[in-house]
Amino acid sequence: MTTDIAPAAETARIDALQAVLDTGSIIKATRMLNALHPAEVAHLLQSLPPRQRELVWGMVADSIEGEVLLYLNDDLRDELLRGMSSSRILAAVEGLDTDDLADLMRDLPATITGEVLSSLDVQRRERLETALGYPQDSAGGLMNTDVVTVRPEVTLDVVMRYLRRFKDGLPNITDKLIVVNRQGRYLGVLYLTDLLTNDLDDSVAEVMSLDVQPIAATLRASDVANRFEQLDLVSAPVVDEDGRVLGRITVDDVMDVIREEAEHQLMGQAGLSETDDMFAPVLLSARRRALWLGVNLLTAFLASWVIGQFEATIQQVVALAVLMPVVASMGGIAGTQTLTLAIRGIALGQLSAKNMRWLLAKEMAVSLINSAIWAVVVALVAYAWFGSIDIALIIGVAITVNLLAATFSGALLPLLLRRLGIDPALAGGVILTTVTDVVGFVAFLGLATLLLM
Amino acid sequence: MTTDIAPAAETARIDALQAVLDTGSIIKATRMLNALHPAEVAHLLQSLPPRQRELVWGMVADSIEGEVLLYLNDDLRDELLRGMSSSRILAAVEGLDTDDLADLMRDLPATITGEVLSSLDVQRRERLETALGYPQDSAGGLMNTDVVTVRPEVTLDVVMRYLRRFKDGLPNITDKLIVVNRQGRYLGVLYLTDLLTNDLDDSVAEVMSLDVQPIAATLRASDVANRFEQLDLVSAPVVDEDGRVLGRITVDDVMDVIREEAEHQLMGQAGLSETDDMFAPVLLSARRRALWLGVNLLTAFLASWVIGQFEATIQQVVALAVLMPVVASMGGIAGTQTLTLAIRGIALGQLSAKNMRWLLAKEMAVSLINSAIWAVVVALVAYAWFGSIDIALIIGVAITVNLLAATFSGALLPLLLRRLGIDPALAGGVILTTVTDVVGFVAFLGLATLLLM
Repeated sequence: MTTDIAPAAETARIDALQAVLDTGSIIKATRMLNALHPAEVAHLLQSLPPRQRELVWGMVADSIEGEVLLYLNDDLRDELLRGMSSSRILAAVEGLDTDDLADLMRDLPATITGEVLSSLDVQRRERLETALGYPQDSAGGLMNTDVVTVRPEVTLDVVMRYLRRFKDGLPNITDKLIVVNRQGRYLGVLYLTDLLTNDLDDSVAEVMSLDVQPIAATLRASDVANRFEQLDLVSAPVVDEDGRVLGRITVDDVMDVIREEAEHQLMGQAGLSETDDMFAPVLLSARRRALWLGVNLLTAFLASWVIGQFEATIQQVVALAVLMPVVASMGGIAGTQTLTLAIRGIALGQLSAKNMRWLLAKEMAVSLINSAIWAVVVALVAYAWFGSIDIALIIGVAITVNLLAATFSGALLPLLLRRLGIDPALAGGVILTTVTDVVGFVAFLGLATLLLM
Repeated sequence: MTTDIAPAAETARIDALQAVLDTGSIIKATRMLNALHPAEVAHLLQSLPPRQRELVWGMVADSIEGEVLLYLNDDLRDELLRGMSSSRILAAVEGLDTDDLADLMRDLPATITGEVLSSLDVQRRERLETALGYPQDSAGGLMNTDVVTVRPEVTLDVVMRYLRRFKDGLPNITDKLIVVNRQGRYLGVLYLTDLLTNDLDDSVAEVMSLDVQPIAATLRASDVANRFEQLDLVSAPVVDEDGRVLGRITVDDVMDVIREEAEHQLMGQAGLSETDDMFAPVLLSARRRALWLGVNLLTAFLASWVIGQFEATIQQVVALAVLMPVVASMGGIAGTQTLTLAIRGIALGQLSAKNMRWLLAKEMAVSLINSAIWAVVVALVAYAWFGSIDIALIIGVAITVNLLAATFSGALLPLLLRRLGIDPALAGGVILTTVTDVVGFVAFLGLATLLLM
């Protein structure tokens, strides 16, 4: 992807285009559209409702279709790819980088994948097959194969003359050259800035930096992102298990990983997928959401069932029915706070089994303080409302019990779920709510049954 | 910040250090600690419980203290700064970049800020004051002043000779030089890669790229991040209102912005701040959480009050008390899905007042389908459970009403809150829950009162 086209007031231009679209002047709109950066076209497509979107996609020039596809979210990309003929797809992917092409290939129907592969020259096909051999969310899946390598024994002057032969320019986001030995094994990196500031008679070996550790092709994408963030990397070499350089990862792809991970956590909590298209077809959205509502309905019915066990008590003391949502809700809030903190701690690599008991102890202490405060407040309100010391005591105790249980589950769930291979960002909230509902209702109604009946 | 220190198996090394710490061998631990990258030291400090943390902070070498502080989250940084003498702080900040120093200065006590400012040479002080003149979350606050500029009329050969004078190397993450006129106004950029691949007799004017738009110092940090992401930038020049180059923003700082924004959304939903330190002191955490619990308690009592209005009905038909959490919970889930989608749409710049009605129409259609499905399911379960067609009908209608109301509020709340200057990531969830609780209970219990009483 290119770094060199950066329109000024992007939003203003997109808005202007939208205005022209509204007037129906197709020719003018097409001209304006194809003056935009592919990323902006993708952005526009994603903000348009389906009908307008189809119209605009038809106006995109063939030469940028491939790049526009790359910038789209998965849902919309799939949808548009399904509507393209194989020859149109072949034309669109022609100019793409290997890593980008590999990303697209994963979404293409198998028949088209075959056609694309056979249309490539041998070197490009081999590179593509290497990239496809690694999972999309690994360093191998993220890497690009456009590496410029140099040998340690040559002088900087030789490197300079070698680079001057790249008449079409160096690959985008080239901040360093990769130094390899005769077998293609990784030795170090030569920063362009070091190339430019050192003596031309120096050898690469003298000037190169040894401290950039190469990334194993099998490293998980999120670990790659953490390393880029921590060490402020712009690009990093990727090697196979023998230390042979396979390609490099650039920071633009890492930014996408960071964004996608963050979205996964945010959207996962609502049972949405990070690729959910805001303007996806109604039926597709409805089906996805229905599933989540169904899962949550099960937990809601479980809570109902618990309440149902205390029907007789509620019939005697209706105040219990009035107050019971307070108990469940306070537990849910306290638990969610701890859960969110723990999920984030794991994602950032700050929380592991090792310091888990510290977090647990701290969270339980916080919870103890808060349950003490709010148990008293709620008890006082309940007393003022219903004039019963019994009910005030019962709700105070129930809130304390539920807050502590909620905090305990919130702290332990994420690591537990991960160990079971379940994504905490997706399942954590539902399970936590189940716990706080059940514990809250049992504590409150159970105590009431014991003391009031 | 440096890009050149990248230890291999970071986690392994941190684990090893932790093991040494456990044995109490301070000298060995100190040596291991100061061999780590400052980012890793910060990471370690953030993962340690308070007592061990204090011990480790005492072991950090003076020469990297400043950088370690930069990598810490705000909470912990403040805490450590409070414990440092002003001379120790002065020593720590000595070697920092201007933008990093500006970040730290915002957290320092005013007396120390004065001391730091007066300890700097004139040029550095002026730069620092420029950076401090812009808000932290603006392009001006993000920028670094270590720009290397060239003039358009010189040849590449002259540029090469000029660069070779930077014996200490060029600033980190220098992928381009900035081309300015005599008045320091921005003209274009010269990529190092273009410098290396073009004819040395060419002038800068011939080779420079014109299409990198400079960033206004007042642009919001999140807009800067969106532009970097969309256009795959590594660095970009920052200018004042007259087009004079003030500095540049590099991708490492942009990654931090992206991460912080994402955390803000995630943590905000649980009433936590993105700077919340997992191991913050118990009392500090308890105070922050207590506030959030209090806000939510108010909404819970509001829901209770609504239920209280129907005490007589519940006493007659206890099944209502058993089933009412189902109605509220389904509304909450459906509303949260739409709310999350809308908040994310706004953050990514895909949702505005212009396409709002499209989203609303689509979400309402999705909600209509889902409320139809789940109303029937819940009605059937309720009938099977309590054998009453009336209750089945009432809960079916109540669920439909609540799901539609939830979706409507979920879609409109974020834009509405933003217009009121309230952060939707923080307040959206609480307000939505209030709506779905109140509408759910009123619809369910109100209908029941009308039909059954």
